[in-house]
Amino acid sequence: MSEVAIVGASMTQFGERDAWVSELLAEAGAACLRDAGVAPDAVEHLYVSNMASGEFEGQTGVQQMLAHDLGVLPAYTERVDGTSAAGGAGIHAAWQSVASGASDVSLLVGGEKMTHRSTGEASDIIASLTHPVEYRTGVTLPSFAGLAARRYFAEYDAPREALAGVAVKNHGNAVDNPHAQFQTEIDRETALESPMVADPLRLYDYCPITDGSAALLFCTEELAREYADTYVTVPGVGGATDTHVVHEREDPTTMGAVVESGRRAYEMADIGPDDVDVAELHDMVTILEWLLYEDLGFAEKGTAWRDTEAGVTARDGDLPVNTSGGLKAKGHPLGASGVAQGYELYRQLTGEAGPRQVDADVGLATNVGGFGNCVTTAVMEVSRDA
Amino acid sequence: MSEVAIVGASMTQFGERDAWVSELLAEAGAACLRDAGVAPDAVEHLYVSNMASGEFEGQTGVQQMLAHDLGVLPAYTERVDGTSAAGGAGIHAAWQSVASGASDVSLLVGGEKMTHRSTGEASDIIASLTHPVEYRTGVTLPSFAGLAARRYFAEYDAPREALAGVAVKNHGNAVDNPHAQFQTEIDRETALESPMVADPLRLYDYCPITDGSAALLFCTEELAREYADTYVTVPGVGGATDTHVVHEREDPTTMGAVVESGRRAYEMADIGPDDVDVAELHDMVTILEWLLYEDLGFAEKGTAWRDTEAGVTARDGDLPVNTSGGLKAKGHPLGASGVAQGYELYRQLTGEAGPRQVDADVGLATNVGGFGNCVTTAVMEVSRDA
Repeated sequence: MSEVAIVGASMTQFGERDAWVSELLAEAGAACLRDAGVAPDAVEHLYVSNMASGEFEGQTGVQQMLAHDLGVLPAYTERVDGTSAAGGAGIHAAWQSVASGASDVSLLVGGEKMTHRSTGEASDIIASLTHPVEYRTGVTLPSFAGLAARRYFAEYDAPREALAGVAVKNHGNAVDNPHAQFQTEIDRETALESPMVADPLRLYDYCPITDGSAALLFCTEELAREYADTYVTVPGVGGATDTHVVHEREDPTTMGAVVESGRRAYEMADIGPDDVDVAELHDMVTILEWLLYEDLGFAEKGTAWRDTEAGVTARDGDLPVNTSGGLKAKGHPLGASGVAQGYELYRQLTGEAGPRQVDADVGLATNVGGFGNCVTTAVMEVSRDA
Repeated sequence: MSEVAIVGASMTQFGERDAWVSELLAEAGAACLRDAGVAPDAVEHLYVSNMASGEFEGQTGVQQMLAHDLGVLPAYTERVDGTSAAGGAGIHAAWQSVASGASDVSLLVGGEKMTHRSTGEASDIIASLTHPVEYRTGVTLPSFAGLAARRYFAEYDAPREALAGVAVKNHGNAVDNPHAQFQTEIDRETALESPMVADPLRLYDYCPITDGSAALLFCTEELAREYADTYVTVPGVGGATDTHVVHEREDPTTMGAVVESGRRAYEMADIGPDDVDVAELHDMVTILEWLLYEDLGFAEKGTAWRDTEAGVTARDGDLPVNTSGGLKAKGHPLGASGVAQGYELYRQLTGEAGPRQVDADVGLATNVGGFGNCVTTAVMEVSRDA
């Protein structure tokens, strides 16, 4: 198995964009090749992470259009969908492409265009990923989060105010991320007084609907040494599923697919939670940052809130989480989000994160499809020995 | 790199099915596991080839639902889309999963549910894969085929009647395929007198709209030796793109992506066209069987028709093509079609093809996305030395 490396990364401005997904993908893809200093004709495989361009825009085949637009022909291409973890699924796919020897250079571009649809329409497209029995009864992803949060607060001694601290932290980080959708600080009062969505969760607990794209350039470590002095390797990837109907799970405050995907990624990378210096965790909703933090072994069950309160997950803490602003403040363009997590780790690990730079050699990203229905985790590590 | 093997295969009845795609996928997936004699909990990765369940049914996340329905949790899953070559893309993905060492056992299930929509609606969903400039001017995939056929007949001395021979041959093969949509023979007159679709191509030159699913179980060759006495290896896969706007291509009678995907697959497998004993070629329309046959090196440009006329591609010929009945008569449920090509090769190579059995050790399948916008080729070889 070849060691797999990343030698370039990009993301577009996230937010409301006056462009089709094909244009966003092309923008990120071209920027990634420029960032890596790699010519289009070096690309052998092109992976496009996208959940629903057909549903959002009536346009399919976006991966084939992108291959043309980027000038990477005759590179092989496919679209990879892991619902809201399509980006993480793309990291899996590009990793496997290089690790298997099928390609030496694979470009991954993730993106979604959502804001031209009403919130109701966009929410309905997203809700189509749930089991019909859930969809028909109106138990959507935001409401599952409310149920999980309620159970969490009933089970553990976490104060409701502490959860607002996740939103405050991630908004604070996004202030220093020029690509984030919301580059504005908020305070706890704002979060706690925002409109109720799914009791006890309020508007500021949830990520927005977003347009955007992000890209990563994967290659063999041998080529990475030629392309760059400093690059990132991907020593571990792991993905796992949980029941597709959420009510079949034993404990709503644990996501089995997060536990298992983390276990697989740690095992492949031969590391443990203690080795991770920086993490991007799928905070589609604030409570998920705590659930993932615990399920990945960064804290005992029911204690993540203490690390939020103590500043452990802040930018100057021991384990900064969502330095990018997270899905909460950076935005969540489905197919782009997992790739943008990789973008943030790449910038942090190579020391190019500017005002939001932290000290880190090993990073971890966890991307959640559905309400933990399928989850991907990737471990990345900087290599400065080139 | 591990050698990649296939130890089980299945396909559902193709045609008009009174079932959702999730049910078709579950039917094929469960049958494949039974065929292989492998328990669900051995499956580590699950790939689902599907182009457009969201557009056809308003249901996304079908891969996560299937993981649940098949009982393969916590297997990692993703959906793979290569438009009309989604099945071939799935073969790529499952191959890379095993070859990279990310999994030892990967189940691939492809499927599409289409016939509940009107022909106009279904055609519109398929047409959404073309470039907007083509879509808006009404140059659809069937019309591109007409243009290519017209050019082919102008360029080479092939008689129009010979093209009807492709439809007659493939319908004849489908008579012996109990899963085929049309198990009826036709004669040349019927084909040549059927309604005009895109001059010079008529109704019987085109594949139907179809519901169906197919599955293949991939594993390491080491495991294959444990699971089966006779199994199939996949020594080569290759994929490639061509321009997304068809009018930019130099020669409409050559598909560059077929040439390149074939070249890559042959090179990886270390074989040439002469080594192939049986082939499944993407005959979405009859003329494509000739174009692919030539672009893959089985005949000189402009001469494929001679092999059809001489019976070389018939079941008792030197290189039987589309023994399954092909997309033409077996049916073309987008995401299933490439996987079903693999099903046919598996049955032929392992000697389980019943009344349509041919003598073959090496098989090749080529699956076409769009009008050659992205193409996948896979080489399979029987191993009886277990």
